Amino acid sequence: MNPETLARLLIRCPDRPGIVAAVTAFLFRHGANITELDQHSTDPSGGRFFMRLEFQTPGVDLAPAELERAFQREVAAGFAMDWRMSYAARRPRMAILLSAHDHAALELLWRWQRGELRVDIPCVIANHDRLAAAARAFGVPFHHVPQESPEQRAQAEGRMLEIIGERADFIVLARYMRILSADFVARFPSRIINIHHSFLPAFVGADPYRQAYERGVKIIGATAHYVTEQLDQGPIIDQDTARVSHSDEIDDLRRLGRDLERQVLARAVRWHVEERVLVDGNKTIVFS
Amino acid sequence: MNPETLARLLIRCPDRPGIVAAVTAFLFRHGANITELDQHSTDPSGGRFFMRLEFQTPGVDLAPAELERAFQREVAAGFAMDWRMSYAARRPRMAILLSAHDHAALELLWRWQRGELRVDIPCVIANHDRLAAAARAFGVPFHHVPQESPEQRAQAEGRMLEIIGERADFIVLARYMRILSADFVARFPSRIINIHHSFLPAFVGADPYRQAYERGVKIIGATAHYVTEQLDQGPIIDQDTARVSHSDEIDDLRRLGRDLERQVLARAVRWHVEERVLVDGNKTIVFS
Amino acid sequence: MNPETLARLLIRCPDRPGIVAAVTAFLFRHGANITELDQHSTDPSGGRFFMRLEFQTPGVDLAPAELERAFQREVAAGFAMDWRMSYAARRPRMAILLSAHDHAALELLWRWQRGELRVDIPCVIANHDRLAAAARAFGVPFHHVPQESPEQRAQAEGRMLEIIGERADFIVLARYMRILSADFVARFPSRIINIHHSFLPAFVGADPYRQAYERGVKIIGATAHYVTEQLDQGPIIDQDTARVSHSDEIDDLRRLGRDLERQVLARAVRWHVEERVLVDGNKTIVFS
Amino acid sequence: MNPETLARLLIRCPDRPGIVAAVTAFLFRHGANITELDQHSTDPSGGRFFMRLEFQTPGVDLAPAELERAFQREVAAGFAMDWRMSYAARRPRMAILLSAHDHAALELLWRWQRGELRVDIPCVIANHDRLAAAARAFGVPFHHVPQESPEQRAQAEGRMLEIIGERADFIVLARYMRILSADFVARFPSRIINIHHSFLPAFVGADPYRQAYERGVKIIGATAHYVTEQLDQGPIIDQDTARVSHSDEIDDLRRLGRDLERQVLARAVRWHVEERVLVDGNKTIVFS
Repeated sequence: MNPETLARLLIRCPDRPGIVAAVTAFLFRHGANITELDQHSTDPSGGRFFMRLEFQTPGVDLAPAELERAFQREVAAGFAMDWRMSYAARRPRMAILLSAHDHAALELLWRWQRGELRVDIPCVIANHDRLAAAARAFGVPFHHVPQESPEQRAQAEGRMLEIIGERADFIVLARYMRILSADFVARFPSRIINIHHSFLPAFVGADPYRQAYERGVKIIGATAHYVTEQLDQGPIIDQDTARVSHSDEIDDLRRLGRDLERQVLARAVRWHVEERVLVDGNKTIVFS
Repeated sequence: MNPETLARLLIRCPDRPGIVAAVTAFLFRHGANITELDQHSTDPSGGRFFMRLEFQTPGVDLAPAELERAFQREVAAGFAMDWRMSYAARRPRMAILLSAHDHAALELLWRWQRGELRVDIPCVIANHDRLAAAARAFGVPFHHVPQESPEQRAQAEGRMLEIIGERADFIVLARYMRILSADFVARFPSRIINIHHSFLPAFVGADPYRQAYERGVKIIGATAHYVTEQLDQGPIIDQDTARVSHSDEIDDLRRLGRDLERQVLARAVRWHVEERVLVDGNKTIVFS
Repeated sequence: MNPETLARLLIRCPDRPGIVAAVTAFLFRHGANITELDQHSTDPSGGRFFMRLEFQTPGVDLAPAELERAFQREVAAGFAMDWRMSYAARRPRMAILLSAHDHAALELLWRWQRGELRVDIPCVIANHDRLAAAARAFGVPFHHVPQESPEQRAQAEGRMLEIIGERADFIVLARYMRILSADFVARFPSRIINIHHSFLPAFVGADPYRQAYERGVKIIGATAHYVTEQLDQGPIIDQDTARVSHSDEIDDLRRLGRDLERQVLARAVRWHVEERVLVDGNKTIVFS
Repeated sequence: MNPETLARLLIRCPDRPGIVAAVTAFLFRHGANITELDQHSTDPSGGRFFMRLEFQTPGVDLAPAELERAFQREVAAGFAMDWRMSYAARRPRMAILLSAHDHAALELLWRWQRGELRVDIPCVIANHDRLAAAARAFGVPFHHVPQESPEQRAQAEGRMLEIIGERADFIVLARYMRILSADFVARFPSRIINIHHSFLPAFVGADPYRQAYERGVKIIGATAHYVTEQLDQGPIIDQDTARVSHSDEIDDLRRLGRDLERQVLARAVRWHVEERVLVDGNKTIVFS
């Protein structure tokens, strides 16, 4: 499978019979070779229908813009589809925001460097400067935007928006320990991924490992989710857990949790990059 | 989703463009409402293509036999498809064979009783009689077919074939500790499921928990697979593992392993019953 | 290791140097052969110390009552120990309470029947009568104590206390869907085990699978905990989780969850029976 | 717990009553404050006994050498103990060997840099030079020792022994794709840790992901073990597995497997560094 000639078609519409036939017949007619197809219906009678296809473009008989116009006219209009096509050759651009803890950001940079994450990274922004040298060693622009107090938020976010500009398609909060303003979040709907260091909805908010320790849980977790205006309430992309015991101190939970956070965030980002995640209200559909 | 009006279509054919479009257009044309669709290609250029669809039949415009004839004529012939349609209202019939250990068989009977396994159970056959009362408490015919020595195998298998007759669609070896003859196996190709108490291909053959203990592994496993002529070499349907430690004796491995065996076998049988497992040479495709 | 001659010593006291030496020297002096030893300190300086030993009694030079008096005098008094010795030959007596869902109760009965749970079961009490035949098939007394409305609670609990009387050492709520009164709970401190069908503290209260479904989590869980006056807030004994996806409906979560509940409850009950669980405030120490 | 004043005592001897009492009484008498204690017996009657203690040294009344002499005289001699004491303030020195794949080596370097691995790293040796820049960015001496063919092995091993000299206490093969000679291995008994990319004993030897793919397994694994003369047969320290499906190609198995390898190797190395791993014939006892 050549990733350079891979295209994706994502569809959401009211469910009714005939959608798959119409979509696949259209693609076949125009020479697209479908290599992956997933669909999900919240309810075959009157529910919402979601579909994701991967296809190879070399045999396609139309230029991308024409293909898209034809799809709208011949298929999408009749089914009231909300849809988009995208091309893997155009890599999504990912901005990374972090604070003092660098394990989640480094994990992404590392996977990116070895080719596991097909993105461009226009900027890494931190409110601490610890990661500066490491980021630069990866050849990635690093920006230090301090934010010591809530009062500095407006200014810091303004500075970050300048840096990000039109340069990023989505943002990853790789242990970014500040709460973004509703305004900032609203600019990137379903395009900011956060890693929260608990199995949500347990332990919302600050210091979840301490909360977990004090509750005496026997498993800890990590959750990757899209950021919405409400703290830690956005659609969950992925979660995972690990066993702990009475002999684990808070610092052990943090150490074990770091490994979970790295794995869960990396998986969620990969799925987002490959456009495997569709948002449905406050839930996600993940065609993994 | 009404299970009584659910049909399934399973397809295997050489991969080439247009299959999904042809199949889904056919079903749409005849009023079938597709509720699940999975496909897999071993290689988009010249590979083998596998597809499984679930659809609801109430709107279908043809009787089953007619629909099948039409499908063969209009779709399957052109793509050289090996295919079958089946109807969930007709429950598959499952024979259970076991020896002295009853946990795997009881797990199946239990799930069957609570409606998790949509099968009929024409017979339970054991070479020990320990399970007789338990099987009968489930209202299932129990047969004791002793087999004390290898010499008795031919006779025992003959007796089992009489009991099974045409009454079973598939057979589950729920810890059946005898090796079936090649002749017996050949009568049920891809229709005998065995649970082996190790993560195959490790610890083939007898007493795998002892083998595992002696090797000093830190995980144990269980494997459900289709039975072929070669011992423990058939296509794997499902596997799972659990952590163990130096403090676990062989009997601990057996106790922990029983839980794995029950889970893995129950999952594999459910997938088989729902026709989610397609065999491809010595591998399986599981559309779970 | 002979379970019939196995004794256990459980200790809790302020931590300070010399405890392990004093305890093990005492047991050695009196001919006890230690076969397991675990200890935990919340903090070596001024923390709480917990210890569990298993030893074989055949070589012990004193009768149990004398050994205990000697231990109090020679060791425990000096370290301000809260302690107890117990003898595995005396099986703890477990009462089971349940409502309409029988999978958790059946799992316990089943493991008990195969010898995995070394308990006596004086009674199974349900507020539905579905399980009556099944319980009796295990040879266990079954009692139906209806409780249709909150108003009937006092009467139902009174009836249950009559049945349980002095006959049970601990109680397992195997999906008992009523909230016990504070009075009832207070009679069995750290001796009522509940299985809650979520990973606590997420999804406290009613219908956690529905809550999980609506939140769109990617893992579900189960939690076994001691019951305290506050609903779902007691010390956690064990938890486990399983992955789910967008395609799992609420009924799928319930089905997958049942398997988790059975495993987690069975593990917690076994640990409790083997006296591996020590309560420390709202947490547990599990010497598994 | 201050790691700088932490000492460890590791013991192996024939099992018989009184060992724990003798050891803990000795340490108490000399002012050592025990903070961890684990023991294991292969069989209380005539088995082998293993014990690991951690204690704090500030209150100890003797200098280390004197304490050790006293322990030999007063305790160890009488029980025919094989034992050692060690002091966490003296960090073990870890040499890393690798080939072209750098993920395992980088994981160790990364954890070391963030303080999770309390070791010194005198050298990283690779038979490819890809990792040179990365290793040096961590401030670790890097050596390129090519070994293109089996004929070059003797020379390459000679060069590596020169580099390692007396500078390393143990060696980690972080995806070192050459087979070490029996002579080399014999110099570091139970002191070479290898990460094998399968769940041993399945898929010994070359390209285990391809073997796994061809067998059609539903789980892949990774195994960390001590290296012995026999390829992939040494004592297993840790293992873990991950689920895969029919849709995973060999490259997917490799990608998923890398994450397993990193986790399993990091855990095994941490346990080795903290002296939690005792070798017993071809097995390990891991006091984790």
